[in-house]
Amino acid sequence: MSTDTTKPDQRKFKVLGTRPIRHDGVDKVTGRAIYTADFQLAGLLYGQILRSPHPHAKIKSIDTSAAEKLPGVYAVATGADFPNLKDKVANLGEGSVNLAHLGANLLAHGKVLYKGHAVAAVAASSPHIADEALRLIKVEYEPLPAVTWVLDAMKPDAPLLHDDLRTDSMGKRGDKPTNVATHLHFEKGDIAAGFKQADVVVEREFRTASVHQGYIEPHASTAHWNADGRVTIWTATQGAFTARQQTAELLQIPVSQVTVVPCEIGGGFGGKIAVYLEPVAAILSRKSGRPVRITMTRADVFEGTGPTPGSYVRVKLGAKNDGTLVAGEAYLAYDAGAFPGGMIGPGCMCIFSCYDLPNAMVDGYDVCNNKPKTQAYRAPGATQAAFACEQVIDELCEKLKLDPIEFRLKNAAKEGTRRVDGPVYPRVGLVECLEAAKNSAHWKSPLAGKNRGRGLAAGFWFNIGLKSSCAANVNADGTVTLIEGSTDIGGTRTSIAMQLAETLGIRAEDVNPHVGDTDSVGYTDVTGGSRVTFATGLAAYECGLDIERQMCERAAILWECNRDQVSCTDGVYQANGKRMSFKELAANLTHTGGPVVGRATVSPEGSTNAFGVHIADVEVDPETGKATVLRYTAIQDAGKAVHPSYVEGQMQGGAVQGIGWALNEEYFFDADHRMRNHSFLDYRMPTALDVPMIETIIVEVPNPTHPYGVRGVGETPIVPPPATIANAIYRATGKRMTELPMSPPKVWKALS
Amino acid sequence: MSTDTTKPDQRKFKVLGTRPIRHDGVDKVTGRAIYTADFQLAGLLYGQILRSPHPHAKIKSIDTSAAEKLPGVYAVATGADFPNLKDKVANLGEGSVNLAHLGANLLAHGKVLYKGHAVAAVAASSPHIADEALRLIKVEYEPLPAVTWVLDAMKPDAPLLHDDLRTDSMGKRGDKPTNVATHLHFEKGDIAAGFKQADVVVEREFRTASVHQGYIEPHASTAHWNADGRVTIWTATQGAFTARQQTAELLQIPVSQVTVVPCEIGGGFGGKIAVYLEPVAAILSRKSGRPVRITMTRADVFEGTGPTPGSYVRVKLGAKNDGTLVAGEAYLAYDAGAFPGGMIGPGCMCIFSCYDLPNAMVDGYDVCNNKPKTQAYRAPGATQAAFACEQVIDELCEKLKLDPIEFRLKNAAKEGTRRVDGPVYPRVGLVECLEAAKNSAHWKSPLAGKNRGRGLAAGFWFNIGLKSSCAANVNADGTVTLIEGSTDIGGTRTSIAMQLAETLGIRAEDVNPHVGDTDSVGYTDVTGGSRVTFATGLAAYECGLDIERQMCERAAILWECNRDQVSCTDGVYQANGKRMSFKELAANLTHTGGPVVGRATVSPEGSTNAFGVHIADVEVDPETGKATVLRYTAIQDAGKAVHPSYVEGQMQGGAVQGIGWALNEEYFFDADHRMRNHSFLDYRMPTALDVPMIETIIVEVPNPTHPYGVRGVGETPIVPPPATIANAIYRATGKRMTELPMSPPKVWKALS
Repeated sequence: MSTDTTKPDQRKFKVLGTRPIRHDGVDKVTGRAIYTADFQLAGLLYGQILRSPHPHAKIKSIDTSAAEKLPGVYAVATGADFPNLKDKVANLGEGSVNLAHLGANLLAHGKVLYKGHAVAAVAASSPHIADEALRLIKVEYEPLPAVTWVLDAMKPDAPLLHDDLRTDSMGKRGDKPTNVATHLHFEKGDIAAGFKQADVVVEREFRTASVHQGYIEPHASTAHWNADGRVTIWTATQGAFTARQQTAELLQIPVSQVTVVPCEIGGGFGGKIAVYLEPVAAILSRKSGRPVRITMTRADVFEGTGPTPGSYVRVKLGAKNDGTLVAGEAYLAYDAGAFPGGMIGPGCMCIFSCYDLPNAMVDGYDVCNNKPKTQAYRAPGATQAAFACEQVIDELCEKLKLDPIEFRLKNAAKEGTRRVDGPVYPRVGLVECLEAAKNSAHWKSPLAGKNRGRGLAAGFWFNIGLKSSCAANVNADGTVTLIEGSTDIGGTRTSIAMQLAETLGIRAEDVNPHVGDTDSVGYTDVTGGSRVTFATGLAAYECGLDIERQMCERAAILWECNRDQVSCTDGVYQANGKRMSFKELAANLTHTGGPVVGRATVSPEGSTNAFGVHIADVEVDPETGKATVLRYTAIQDAGKAVHPSYVEGQMQGGAVQGIGWALNEEYFFDADHRMRNHSFLDYRMPTALDVPMIETIIVEVPNPTHPYGVRGVGETPIVPPPATIANAIYRATGKRMTELPMSPPKVWKALS
Repeated sequence: MSTDTTKPDQRKFKVLGTRPIRHDGVDKVTGRAIYTADFQLAGLLYGQILRSPHPHAKIKSIDTSAAEKLPGVYAVATGADFPNLKDKVANLGEGSVNLAHLGANLLAHGKVLYKGHAVAAVAASSPHIADEALRLIKVEYEPLPAVTWVLDAMKPDAPLLHDDLRTDSMGKRGDKPTNVATHLHFEKGDIAAGFKQADVVVEREFRTASVHQGYIEPHASTAHWNADGRVTIWTATQGAFTARQQTAELLQIPVSQVTVVPCEIGGGFGGKIAVYLEPVAAILSRKSGRPVRITMTRADVFEGTGPTPGSYVRVKLGAKNDGTLVAGEAYLAYDAGAFPGGMIGPGCMCIFSCYDLPNAMVDGYDVCNNKPKTQAYRAPGATQAAFACEQVIDELCEKLKLDPIEFRLKNAAKEGTRRVDGPVYPRVGLVECLEAAKNSAHWKSPLAGKNRGRGLAAGFWFNIGLKSSCAANVNADGTVTLIEGSTDIGGTRTSIAMQLAETLGIRAEDVNPHVGDTDSVGYTDVTGGSRVTFATGLAAYECGLDIERQMCERAAILWECNRDQVSCTDGVYQANGKRMSFKELAANLTHTGGPVVGRATVSPEGSTNAFGVHIADVEVDPETGKATVLRYTAIQDAGKAVHPSYVEGQMQGGAVQGIGWALNEEYFFDADHRMRNHSFLDYRMPTALDVPMIETIIVEVPNPTHPYGVRGVGETPIVPPPATIANAIYRATGKRMTELPMSPPKVWKALS
C-alpha cells in the first residue's frame, strides 16, 4: 500500500490544487440558476399540505368533501391515496427503508405522530384557493399523550408511538411494546480487563437538543403524471435516483416510469435525501391530470422535515498514567423521531473512531418519539458522539496533566487501527492533522484575558463509496461537456470537472459540467456521505481515460500509424515525432469517425476516512453566560484538495453550523410538545456577525483508494465544534458543559 | 457486397417490424409534452419582431428611442446589435453558410429584401406592451423595385438584391451584378451523341410556385443570457447542435458557451433547421438581463420563414423506339429567395436519379429574388425536378406506346448505375418498387368513368449520413434509458429505441428514449436528410453492442468464469450451462461493479438511397377545373421497416403534402410582390376531407450499409405526387399541366 500512496504525492498536478471560478458560480449569483420554484408549466396547480396541530393523536375521521367542492380545487389527497405499503421494504442506496413508515410520514395513516405531521394535501388553481381549501378539511383527532425527550421515551410507562416495537432500554427483546426501534452493540477486546489496567477513569453524561439542517431553500417539488402512468418530477433533492426510487416504491410503479429532474438546490446537508413532497405532488397530479407544484413554508420545513436527533450519550474512558488509553465504553440513545431509522448507526461507529482503543464497547439505541422523523445532517450522529467523547478525553488530559494534542497524538487512530465496529483503517491523516494543529499559529499564540479559554477537539467522518456514473462529450472547439449524476450542493460540478480536466490535460474552464436527470445519466447514488468528489470524481477520471483511449485512436488515423505508437502526456498526443494538442485533435474528429463520447461507472469501496482537528478561543460573559468565539481554526486532511477554496469553504461552513449547534440552535418545545421557534427569527442560526473568520489549514495525506489521493471533505468539519467550544468554555470558566446548546441561560446557570 | 446484403434478409427480427405504441405518444396526445411556449421562467420577457411592409427597400434610418422609453420595455434590438459578420463563413453540418447573410435575414442590415423581413425586435414585460413598442419604432424606408419570379430575376434589367453576385443566366461570370448566386453543371457521357441515337425526343418547360412547409407549431425560442456570457436557449429546432453552432457563430462566441435545449417540435419538414429567433432572443436577453421568449404568429411564419423554391425547369429526354433512354438534358432555375443558398443542388442531383441514363447534362441556377430566404422542405428541390422529368417520361411512354411501368423498369436505376452528379448506386430498390406497383391491387383495378385518369410517377431521395451520438443506461429493473441527440419530429425516438431493443434482445417498451440537449449528449447532426432512423439508429446499434460487451463481463464476474466463456443470444447470457436474461443480469449490476452505461458515435457515409413509386386516380370537373383524388397508392423501399406504422405514416404524410402542393398550395403574390394569403384559411392546405385514404405498400430491399438493412424513409414520399397527379390529369383530360399548383382556375383554363 505504501508504494501506492506515494504515487499521487509525486505527481505534479496542473489543475488539481488550483482555484478556478466555479462553473455554476455566475448562474448562482445572478439568479439564472433554475430552482424548482422558478418555472411554471402550462396549467400548473398549486399544492398545499394540511398539518397536524397535535404532537400525538389518533385520526378518527377526515372529511374532505367541502374542500373538494370549492371552485378552483382540482384534487384532494390523504394517506388513503397511497397504495398499501404494509410490510414493504425497499433497499434505497444507503440502506433499507420501511415503505409503510416512509409513506405514513408523507401523509399520515390513522395517527399523527408529531406536530406538523402531514395529514392531507390539496391542489388548486392558486395558492390562495389551496389555502382556503385546507381550512375546509375537517379532521377529527383524539389527542394522545406525547413524549419528546429520548430518555423519557425509553421509560416503561412512556406513551407509545408504534405497536410493533419490542426492544427495552437495555437492548433486550420482550413482549411489551416499547419505543426502541433498534439496539446496536459493538465490542472489541476485553472491556473489563481494559478498565482494570486504567490508572484514571472518567465517566460522564451528555445531552443534546434537536437541531435543523437549516438549508435556505424550502422543499419544493413539481410533478406531472400522465395518462400512460409515467410521471416527471422536478425537485430539490440531494439524489435524483434516490428520489426516483423512493417515489416509485411509494407509488408502487416501476422506476423506469418515473423521471426525476434535479433542479438547483439551495442547501440540503442530508435533509433533502428523503422524499416529502414528490410522491404527494405525483398523487395530486394523477388525480387532477395537471402538473402540481408544492412548496413548503419555513414553518413546514422546521415542523415537517427531519431535524438531527436529540441525544443522550454516556462515555467512560480509562487511561494509564503515561497517557495510554486502555478502555472505552459508550451508551448512546438517539431520537429516531416519529418513525424508526435514526442516526444511531454512525453515532456508534464514530464515537471512538479517532482513537486506537484496544478495548471498547458501544451500545446504541434508536428511539421513537413525537418529533419529526429525524434525518441525516452533515456527518449524522457524529457530532453528538464527539461532543461527549472529546470532553471526556479533555478531562482525562487534565487529570493526567497531559497536553491535549500530545495525548491525542499518543492514542491517535492510524493506518492499521481497527475501529470498534470492525473496519481497519487504510492510510489516514489524523496524526498529520494533530501535528498541524500543534504547529499552527493559533495554537502557538498566547491567549490572555479574563474569562477566556482555548479548546481543542478531533472529529472523524467516512467517505462512503456507492455508485456513480458519468459521460462526457468532446466538442469541436476542444472543450468537453461532462454529464454527471451527482446533484451539486457544494461545488461538486467543479471538483468533478477538475478531475476530468486533470486527466485529459486540459483547463478546468474547458470542461462544462452538467447534472443530468434520471433519464440522462447512468445510475448515481445520493449526494451525501462525503462521497461525490471522491467517487463521482473517480468516475470522471475513468471517463477521461476512456476519452484518451479514443483520442489516441483518432490520432493514429490522422497520422496513419498504429494506435500503439500514439502516446499522450499532459494532453499532448504524440507519435513518430508528430504532436497535437487535445484541442487540435478535437477539431479533427469529424473526419476520423465522428464525435468522441466517454463514459464510466464506478462503485468504489467506501474505505476512505477524513479526520479533522479544531481549535477555538472563547470568552464567556459571566453576567449573561454568553460565549463569544474569538478565534477559530479548522484543520483537516483533504487527501488532495481538488479546489482548495471549496475545501476551505466546506471547513468554514461546517464549523459555523457546528458553532450554531454548540451555542444557540435547538428545537424549543413547550410543555405540550409543540415547537415554539419555527421561524428563522426565533430559531437562531449564527450569522456572519456571530462568528470570527474561520481559519483553515488543509492537510494532504493522499487517499490510497483514489488515483489522485482525493478524500471527501464535506461532513467532518461539523463534528468537532461543539466539543471544541465546550472544552474552551471549561478552560475559561472551570465549568464542564454537558448539554447542547450551551446557550447563555445554561452557561449562566452553570456559573451561578 | 451481395453477401453482405443477404445477411439482414435472413435474420429473424423480434422487435424490428413490430408496431409498439410510440414512446412519446401519450405525452403528445394528452398535452404533457413540453413545447417551447409551454413553460415560463421567472422574470420572462416577451419578444416581438417588427417586419418590413416592403418587398424591397433601403432602410434609411431606424429610430427606436420612443419604444425604448415605453414603460415595460426592457430591450430593443436591430441588426446593428449583431457583431460584424462580413466575410465570415461557417461550416454547419450540411454545408457552409455565409454568416453575414444569415445574420441579415434575422435582423435586416441596411436593406429589406422581402415583405416580412425582420427589422427590429423588442422585449417587454407583456406581449401587449411589446406590440405597442413595435408601433413606436420609426423606420424610414426608400422603396425599391422588386422581383419575385425566378426567370424575371435572371433578366439583365432585373432589380438587384445584392451587389456582389456576378453570374449571368448562362452560367458565365462577368462584371455586371446579377441575381444568380450559383451555377451548377453536371455532365455524363456524350450528350450530343446520345440525342443522335434517339428515335423520339421530348422537351418541355415547367413552372412551380413557392409553397410552405406548413408545420403546425410556429417558431418559438426562449433565451437566457447570463453575466458570464453563457446563454441557454430553449427552442423548436430540428437540430439542437446546428442551432447551437449557428447561434454561436452569429453571436461570435464559442459553441461551448451556448446550450440549446430542443423542446418538443410541432413539425419542421426542413423549415426548422435555420435559426430565426434564437440569436435575436439571445441578444434581447443580453441587453435586458432577463430570459426572453419570442413566438411567431402564423403570418410571421409564412412571410418570415423559408418556403420551398418556386422554380422553372426545362427537361429534354431522348429514347429509342424500343424504349431505351439514351440522353437527357435539364435546365433548372430555383428561387434562392432573399439570400443565396437555395435548394438547387439536390434538384440537379435528383432530376434524372431514377434512370440509368448513359448521356446526360444538367444545369442549375440558384437565383435571388424578393421572397423569404428559401429553406429545405422534405426532399428539398426534388419534387420540382420530378414534376418536370416524370411528365416528360410519361409523354415519351405515350409517344412510344409503352406501358409507364415497363418503360421505367427498362430504364430503372439499379446497383451500379452512376448518377449524373457522380455517385454509383449500391443495392437500391426502384425495380422492386416498380414491380410492386405493377402487382398492386390499385394498378390492376379498372378505372371507369368520364374525366377520370390514372397517373404514375417515381421519385428518389438520399439518406445523408453525417454524425450521430447516443448513450444508454441500464436500469436495475431491466429497462434501458437511451439518450440520443436527434430531435424527434416523426417518431424517431421509437425507431431508434427499437434498434437498441433489437440489439439487446429486450422489448421496445423496455427502452426509454430521451432527446438530450447539447450539454447532455454527444454531437449529433440535424434531423433531416432522412438520416435519423438510419444513422442515429446505427449509433443505437453500436451502443447496444457496447452494453452487451459490458453485460458479458458482469455475467463472467457473477459466474466466476472467463469473459470469453460468456455468450449472448437474443438477450440471454450463457456460460457453462448457466443462463440469465438481460433483466436478471441488470438486477445484478450493483454488486458486480456498479451501473452499466453504453455509448457510441457514428459517422456513416451517406450512400444509401430510397426510391418510391406513386399511383393516383383523379377525376377532373370540367365545369370548375377542380381535380379530385379518387384513389392514391404510395409504394416505397424502406430497406427494413423498423416500425411499419411510422413508415406508412411518413408515406401518407408526404403524399398528402405533395397532393396539396400539386393542387392548391402556393404563395399568392399581388402586383406589388406582397403575399396575400398568409393565413391557414387562405393558404389552402389539404385536410382529411380533401384526400382519400392513402394506401401504402412497403418494399424491403435491405440497405447494405446498415446492419439491419434500414433506409430512411421520411422524404421520398413528397417527390412523386405532383408528377403523379399531373400524369393522371393528362390521362383524364388530354391536357398536360406544366404549372404548379394545378388549381381549378389553371386546369379550367387549360380545358377551355
